Amino acid sequence: MAEKTHRVAFQPDGRTLTVRAGQTLLEAARAAGIHLEAPCGGKGTCGGCRVIIPHDAPPPSAACRRELSGEEIRRQMRLACQVRVDRDLRVVIPEETRLGNQKILTEGVERKVPLAPNVHKVAVHLPEPSVSDQRADGERLLDALAEKGLADLTIDVKTARDLPARLRSLDFHPAVVVIGDEVVHVDRPGASEACYGMAFDIGTTTLAGYLTDLVTGRVVVVASRANPQTAYGDDVIARIEYCGRQTGGARTLQALAVDAMNEMVAEACRRADLKPSVVYEVTMVGNTTMNHLLLRLPVTQIARAPFVAASAAAHSVAARDVGLKIHPLGRLYTAPLIASFVGADTVGVILATGMNESARLRLAIDIGTNGEIVLGTRERLIACSTAAGPAFEGARIRYGMRAATGAIDRVDLQGETLVLHTIDDAPAVGLCGTGLIDAVAAMVEGGVLGASGRMRAAADVAATRPALARRLIGSDGDPAFLLAGKKETESGHPILLMQKDVREVQLAKGAMAAGVEMLLEEFGAAIGDVEEVLLAGAFGNFIRPDRALAIGLLPRVPVAKVKFVGNAAGAGARMLLVNRRLRQVADDVARGVEHIELSQRPDFQARFAEAMFFPAGKA
Amino acid sequence: MAEKTHRVAFQPDGRTLTVRAGQTLLEAARAAGIHLEAPCGGKGTCGGCRVIIPHDAPPPSAACRRELSGEEIRRQMRLACQVRVDRDLRVVIPEETRLGNQKILTEGVERKVPLAPNVHKVAVHLPEPSVSDQRADGERLLDALAEKGLADLTIDVKTARDLPARLRSLDFHPAVVVIGDEVVHVDRPGASEACYGMAFDIGTTTLAGYLTDLVTGRVVVVASRANPQTAYGDDVIARIEYCGRQTGGARTLQALAVDAMNEMVAEACRRADLKPSVVYEVTMVGNTTMNHLLLRLPVTQIARAPFVAASAAAHSVAARDVGLKIHPLGRLYTAPLIASFVGADTVGVILATGMNESARLRLAIDIGTNGEIVLGTRERLIACSTAAGPAFEGARIRYGMRAATGAIDRVDLQGETLVLHTIDDAPAVGLCGTGLIDAVAAMVEGGVLGASGRMRAAADVAATRPALARRLIGSDGDPAFLLAGKKETESGHPILLMQKDVREVQLAKGAMAAGVEMLLEEFGAAIGDVEEVLLAGAFGNFIRPDRALAIGLLPRVPVAKVKFVGNAAGAGARMLLVNRRLRQVADDVARGVEHIELSQRPDFQARFAEAMFFPAGKA
Repeated sequence: MAEKTHRVAFQPDGRTLTVRAGQTLLEAARAAGIHLEAPCGGKGTCGGCRVIIPHDAPPPSAACRRELSGEEIRRQMRLACQVRVDRDLRVVIPEETRLGNQKILTEGVERKVPLAPNVHKVAVHLPEPSVSDQRADGERLLDALAEKGLADLTIDVKTARDLPARLRSLDFHPAVVVIGDEVVHVDRPGASEACYGMAFDIGTTTLAGYLTDLVTGRVVVVASRANPQTAYGDDVIARIEYCGRQTGGARTLQALAVDAMNEMVAEACRRADLKPSVVYEVTMVGNTTMNHLLLRLPVTQIARAPFVAASAAAHSVAARDVGLKIHPLGRLYTAPLIASFVGADTVGVILATGMNESARLRLAIDIGTNGEIVLGTRERLIACSTAAGPAFEGARIRYGMRAATGAIDRVDLQGETLVLHTIDDAPAVGLCGTGLIDAVAAMVEGGVLGASGRMRAAADVAATRPALARRLIGSDGDPAFLLAGKKETESGHPILLMQKDVREVQLAKGAMAAGVEMLLEEFGAAIGDVEEVLLAGAFGNFIRPDRALAIGLLPRVPVAKVKFVGNAAGAGARMLLVNRRLRQVADDVARGVEHIELSQRPDFQARFAEAMFFPAGKA
Repeated sequence: MAEKTHRVAFQPDGRTLTVRAGQTLLEAARAAGIHLEAPCGGKGTCGGCRVIIPHDAPPPSAACRRELSGEEIRRQMRLACQVRVDRDLRVVIPEETRLGNQKILTEGVERKVPLAPNVHKVAVHLPEPSVSDQRADGERLLDALAEKGLADLTIDVKTARDLPARLRSLDFHPAVVVIGDEVVHVDRPGASEACYGMAFDIGTTTLAGYLTDLVTGRVVVVASRANPQTAYGDDVIARIEYCGRQTGGARTLQALAVDAMNEMVAEACRRADLKPSVVYEVTMVGNTTMNHLLLRLPVTQIARAPFVAASAAAHSVAARDVGLKIHPLGRLYTAPLIASFVGADTVGVILATGMNESARLRLAIDIGTNGEIVLGTRERLIACSTAAGPAFEGARIRYGMRAATGAIDRVDLQGETLVLHTIDDAPAVGLCGTGLIDAVAAMVEGGVLGASGRMRAAADVAATRPALARRLIGSDGDPAFLLAGKKETESGHPILLMQKDVREVQLAKGAMAAGVEMLLEEFGAAIGDVEEVLLAGAFGNFIRPDRALAIGLLPRVPVAKVKFVGNAAGAGARMLLVNRRLRQVADDVARGVEHIELSQRPDFQARFAEAMFFPAGKA
């Protein structure tokens, strides 16, 4: 008798698996290569593997009722280890459940970050002053906070000015907001004790924000959107040039980023049913240009030799000084930078992957509009950046788009048949980064792309691969490859991959590959010495490593050495939000990493040119 | 043959000595009980005993030329050890020369404060950025400062915003101002490297300010003036009541104090030929009310049971936030407070006298409008305050005045003859604190005051002391004692000591004496156990201890145990200005001192009443 099976669709990964009935969701996710946080190993005791089953969630088990709140259970949250698959299911994996997973993937150990946020909101009961206890109001409050474990704080004189009236009107039972080492606000105890922060990864093309409960350390909402600065240039050089050309240009770009961040804060708070005024701190990682624009530091000198930043340090500023609309006394912490083109996002990747603590030789590649590459161990880390361009984020590609509903995210060549997969199985709208890699890999595999990356003439392919040859068509005089025909698309127009698009991929992957080679040489290591290749970036989780290897985007390592670490930069921002002690570590990392300026290496251009070829073509 | 002598007048002490010809000024000063800083013992090698001889200064010796600058020599500054008296001389003793002296007096050792100011101004030469040195501008600057010994600094984002343009316009050779741990200003290297601070003792009645060169640590100008807040009440309670009564009253008092401080800064800078913008930090000690008014902290709760301050902590704020006109980025540091009526001035006294480090049991009495008393050793310090009233500062006394030209500062009874001395030997204008003590002592000695402090009727005294009896006259129905007749005074009107004035002295000395008794009892010590009685306060240096003992202002100790420490509170403010590490010590002192609230002691009133009697009268 055939074993009974069901289909389980994992969101937002977009993977659908056939699962044997009776397996747990935790086992099914593992089989799909999706690792959930589960330090207890699936015994239902750690509360880590939380997933949401939006439709027809099974009744909560005893373990679910023990580990989850009533509100969570109402939201259809369950522990994946407690749910046995007995029908087709759609399962949403919350970001926080995945977080630990990424770390487990990269280190093989759980890297829990102890909860030690920079912001605390605590209710205190002060003894009222009397002639036998004449402590000043400020010291009375600080003593009470010290008893709660918040020692060595100070009270700003502005706060102290209101303190006597405030404490007396509250009968000496205030709720106190502490940021850093300072009491910044004395509030009514009846006021919400909600205390949130938001961690941002400000990418050149994409913004990601993680609204985080600073009492539990959990991410409650993830928000993302396109960076609206893209209208002024799709890479940092173009935007810096705009700032140099246009008076007030930097202000314009700053306002765009801050407005987007404010919208993300508002949206995330709305989804979590919170007011933005309960957000007390924002942490931010981003490349040097994003960092400088946000902080209103000058950028023009970044793009001119010798390419120096104004300040590589971490900064903590009043959030409202840069226009962020969180609590009026809230703070913005920007993580430190390594160099002009290796920014705080790379510091975030290093922190999230623990490269600064590991003895194993690892290579991290953060694929964004700039590709940052880090190689090394806790003894020595070296980094470089490459102008990969925004191709993998959907920009500069004729039918490119972000990874959203209808994006072609997977392309497989079966014989001569192209098998497409779209996000949410919707009619095709365009091509996202993973689909782009897959499509190019398929074209190499199918022999329609030469080693140089030039599309072959249909006539040359027709003899051996007639079906593929029919896809080689021109469009406005530019060679193109038909990916999806009219009937497969949302618009009714075909989706093509242009010769120019292939060139973009070649530039990106050539820059990345050459950068890796330069770092290995500088480090004195061979690619075979690298124990793990960590793939970071917003879309890193979705790349299929065999395809990335096939086109030479990744160095030639066994597929098993490739690990996905997701948006590790964003994970770093979250770590810096929930544990302020890591900020010192971040400073040490930022100043400790050696930066290699590729443009200054005489052999870089030659290697870059060489690396633009496709390996299959060379073979 | 009679030995040849000359007269030497010491200013501003107002003492004139007859000195054997050939003695050095250093020896003469010692004979007058004025101790100058002279760690080398008078060998001309330490440069400590600087004095100014305004008229006919002798030519500088080789030692003077070695130890003093050309400018100082032009200003008639000489080393007292190098000047042999060969004619009558007037000698001005600068405050800084006296400073070490006070400490030598109190501890028998020189308590030099290492120069470690909170402000530094340094010129740095940065290597220009290049492709082989791509450090950010901020880090480049911080690295160069670290090489100059200023490590672990930060650059505020506001400063960083201007940094790239500024460094380039200065060819990477800036002069940098560092306050605390922060780079606050990047200036032209040609700009003055002058770097000054000003230490303030803000008393209820008197303000003293010490303009200090933060490169050498030397006080360059001392400024003082009456506290203009006196117009709104001559003690702190009256001023607090004004603030409670009058909307905007606290603002008015704040503005008065700040305006006076600004005038003192301007005056001191004018005298030193400096611009106020080279003053980068102000330190301030003062009682709790002065501290709170200046910082715009609320004061009304200080005067209401249970008498609590808003904040007892040290604060460091932007000077311009409180209206201080120094460098636009300058800071104000206010020293921490012990209790509502034992303020930062007492912390200053403790630091200046080293009571927090000494094993010997000492008693410090700071005689101001409030009398603060501290007793103890480095193991335990206890303090209280008494409402002494402003009598010794010239207020509430009919003919009272500050210690200025024409003030009767000494009164001696020789037989039945009153011998008066006035400051600068000018015609009498009024009576300052020391003159007041002397006058009352003379009246007790002459039998014209009874034990209760009541002036006896002229008729009762006439038989035994006819000359003194003639001085007992009425004035507007109030008994009065004639101190100076018409011919002796500037105005041509007589100067009287009123019965009411005697009552003010009784209240003040009764409060002080009762406070000392309460502290001794609390500490479990007898007055005989006290090894030193330190007399602090603006006029402390000028009191004659035998007179203070005669009226019971000081506890009954041998005269030899009484030491003058001058304006020790101001000395504390100067120490906190030139050595920022002491600010941590000040915090420890402020929180470590036990405060005794006299009003809560059931037996205080009885002791107070008892202590108002005069000892001579009781004998």
